[in-house]
Amino acid sequence: MLTPRLKVSLESVKKLIRRNAKVALEKTLSKLHPADIAIIYNNLNDIDGKKLWNNIKDEKLMAEIIAEMNEADVIDVISDQKPEKIARIVEHMESDDAADVVRLLPDEISDSVLSFMGDSDQISEVEQLLNYEEYTAGSIMNTSYFSLNEETTVKEATKSLHGAKNVDMVFYLYVTDDENRLVGVISLRQLILNPPEKKLYEIMTTDVIHVTTYEDQEDVAKVVEKYDLLAVPVVDEFNVLAGIITVDDVIDIIREEATEDFYMMVGSSDDELLFANNSMKIAKVRLPWLIVTFVGSIVASIVLTFFQGHARDFAMLVPFVPIIMAMAGNAGSQSATILIRGVALGKISTSDIIPIMLKEMRVGMIMGITIGVLLVFIAPLWSGSPIIGFVVGTAMFFAMTLATFSGTFVPATLIRFNFDPAVASSPFISMLNDILGLSIYFSVSAVLLRYFG
Amino acid sequence: MLTPRLKVSLESVKKLIRRNAKVALEKTLSKLHPADIAIIYNNLNDIDGKKLWNNIKDEKLMAEIIAEMNEADVIDVISDQKPEKIARIVEHMESDDAADVVRLLPDEISDSVLSFMGDSDQISEVEQLLNYEEYTAGSIMNTSYFSLNEETTVKEATKSLHGAKNVDMVFYLYVTDDENRLVGVISLRQLILNPPEKKLYEIMTTDVIHVTTYEDQEDVAKVVEKYDLLAVPVVDEFNVLAGIITVDDVIDIIREEATEDFYMMVGSSDDELLFANNSMKIAKVRLPWLIVTFVGSIVASIVLTFFQGHARDFAMLVPFVPIIMAMAGNAGSQSATILIRGVALGKISTSDIIPIMLKEMRVGMIMGITIGVLLVFIAPLWSGSPIIGFVVGTAMFFAMTLATFSGTFVPATLIRFNFDPAVASSPFISMLNDILGLSIYFSVSAVLLRYFG
Repeated sequence: MLTPRLKVSLESVKKLIRRNAKVALEKTLSKLHPADIAIIYNNLNDIDGKKLWNNIKDEKLMAEIIAEMNEADVIDVISDQKPEKIARIVEHMESDDAADVVRLLPDEISDSVLSFMGDSDQISEVEQLLNYEEYTAGSIMNTSYFSLNEETTVKEATKSLHGAKNVDMVFYLYVTDDENRLVGVISLRQLILNPPEKKLYEIMTTDVIHVTTYEDQEDVAKVVEKYDLLAVPVVDEFNVLAGIITVDDVIDIIREEATEDFYMMVGSSDDELLFANNSMKIAKVRLPWLIVTFVGSIVASIVLTFFQGHARDFAMLVPFVPIIMAMAGNAGSQSATILIRGVALGKISTSDIIPIMLKEMRVGMIMGITIGVLLVFIAPLWSGSPIIGFVVGTAMFFAMTLATFSGTFVPATLIRFNFDPAVASSPFISMLNDILGLSIYFSVSAVLLRYFG
Repeated sequence: MLTPRLKVSLESVKKLIRRNAKVALEKTLSKLHPADIAIIYNNLNDIDGKKLWNNIKDEKLMAEIIAEMNEADVIDVISDQKPEKIARIVEHMESDDAADVVRLLPDEISDSVLSFMGDSDQISEVEQLLNYEEYTAGSIMNTSYFSLNEETTVKEATKSLHGAKNVDMVFYLYVTDDENRLVGVISLRQLILNPPEKKLYEIMTTDVIHVTTYEDQEDVAKVVEKYDLLAVPVVDEFNVLAGIITVDDVIDIIREEATEDFYMMVGSSDDELLFANNSMKIAKVRLPWLIVTFVGSIVASIVLTFFQGHARDFAMLVPFVPIIMAMAGNAGSQSATILIRGVALGKISTSDIIPIMLKEMRVGMIMGITIGVLLVFIAPLWSGSPIIGFVVGTAMFFAMTLATFSGTFVPATLIRFNFDPAVASSPFISMLNDILGLSIYFSVSAVLLRYFG
């Protein structure tokens, strides 16, 4: 959704592109924040987007815009640039943003880009970042942080701050010993409030909240969130300061992880975002889990075939199959979603899982009784047989109770074996519930019809 | 998931509670961060939690812990406290956190709490916050911000900072005119870097990114995120500074909104979190949308009954009903989730919706061909009839294509009429797809069986 102001900008940019008014376009862009240009680019079609991009001459501005773009758009704008050009753009970026761009390139091109870059410090920083495993603190940290030795005075520290023009967001001064090990932290406010002759080790907080390079980015986000930090220092296994992760990166992580969970839960992946316009590739991302569900539904179909051959009054029971499947499926998804989200938020710990399963089964029983009783009265309306209402209602009660159980059991099992519980939970659970639901339905009806039919 | 360090703390707290070692427990708690105590409380059972809470005597610590707790736990610990006691606890909080607590209380108790509070400034701040509509910038802003008049010098500003001990997180100095209208902003770093005799209006940035009191919190989050801010000032309709929203609140908003979407998508609500242990109330939250689905599944059932009476070879077609329903249901959820998440992230704007529907239909066709062709070969294995394989495969192709269409059409329609697209999309879409899928299946088979059967 665009803000009204951005909509106006978007429309005027579109007009200028159509009129091919290059100078006016350049002037309009110069008044916009790079983040706004990134959004405008995202809202243009391919041809207009290319024209907009070709109109930007300043490599620093390109770097600022790219740092705000989503991955698919970044690939769009850099894929047909020469490695020299890409190198000149990423030179204007923080090393973590530069590494993010280089990571998107095929290996041979990324090597070439690195070789064209001018600043050897930046090259080694980017190379180092590329070496960390994806989704770890090391791979996302910013290596151009601001730190000072513990023997520095407040006055010297304030002076150093003047020189530190390229350090993007300085919130805290990290204090290190002679081996560059992290020993303390001082906020800018503390620095202002202390007399100039004091040494940093006299005023620093020594109990520094930090993360290590190999920690998962999701855990980093939780630390920053829990302690309301603006930035968290990242240290290696020897407690040597390696970089910082700032709160704006943490916000991106939180968004990304939620998106990943949304996609995974329906059996897709956020790789889709990379293939925004390639239906074939998107289908390839989604098909694997659909095929797993397909196999499951074949089992459900075999169950149905079996009962078709063996169940008494099968023809009277069949019309209720969609109701049983739909209700069990939805009740199961509800339970699964609640559990998966609770775990992602850190609100549910492993020891809570058994109580939650029991709670979900109680909820399932209450919902099953409600829907079951409704069915007892409604089903005879078009089956004509009161006993069928009783059969279907009873089966619904069991099917929904079991559905809420399997809705928590499947993700809990995934957690137990250290998988992400969001992995395709929804298709997998609905598959399981289809099989269970149909089996229960026809088994219950077989028993009840034998006694009451 | 608890960190290993927190697990150890949790275990030792549990032991101390069981041994009733009050002094040792107090000592252990004094060493923990309030955020950690909140997490430990969340991981205790009701009885141990109550014991832990009763062991905390310091009202300031109580306030700090409550500010870190989730709503359900806050209700737990304050619901059996006297209004006087609650007043003494919230007096130690920032006014936005205090308002959050008071908001959870029944009206008569919240009035009583306000009357017991000592600081009349804080009372009026809290009352003002309670007046703003929920989920607006006004309702979540912190009213104790730090602002100075534009005529102030850098030296005076630095001095004022010394006095501002109670201002929690000062990142920016907001600069106002004589009417308290927001005219500029200065970062702490700019303040350090400028000569002491300069006046604020000489060095401030005048183009201040801000939000208004009535803006939706989700939009506030997007502003902070887009411009990588640490805090955003909130102004009223006359541009008078009313408060600030800090990045830690924004992180909470982002988490909350994603959670809300997860819950809504399966036809539940995050109200569930308030009733963690009351199965009856949870069932009440989930049942309304299950009943909508129920009505839809009755329609599907009527469709099936109709074809049972009219379709040729119905008995041979029935076993494939679960396969058609499962595949159409899952393909539809995938499309819906991708659209809903894209809109929530601001990556999809209203003008993108038609192209996305077309893209999803293309994806649906590709997946439909794949699964359809598989069925052509597999179905005859247990139906025994090759023509049935052809019928089921063709129907699957149409059902999946239409499912991806309705998976985007339903949320798009909700957006069109200004509803949140996440509202119960999943149950509603699966209901629609069940009805459509069955209708298509039997219609296609009727046509094909007439010519080839």
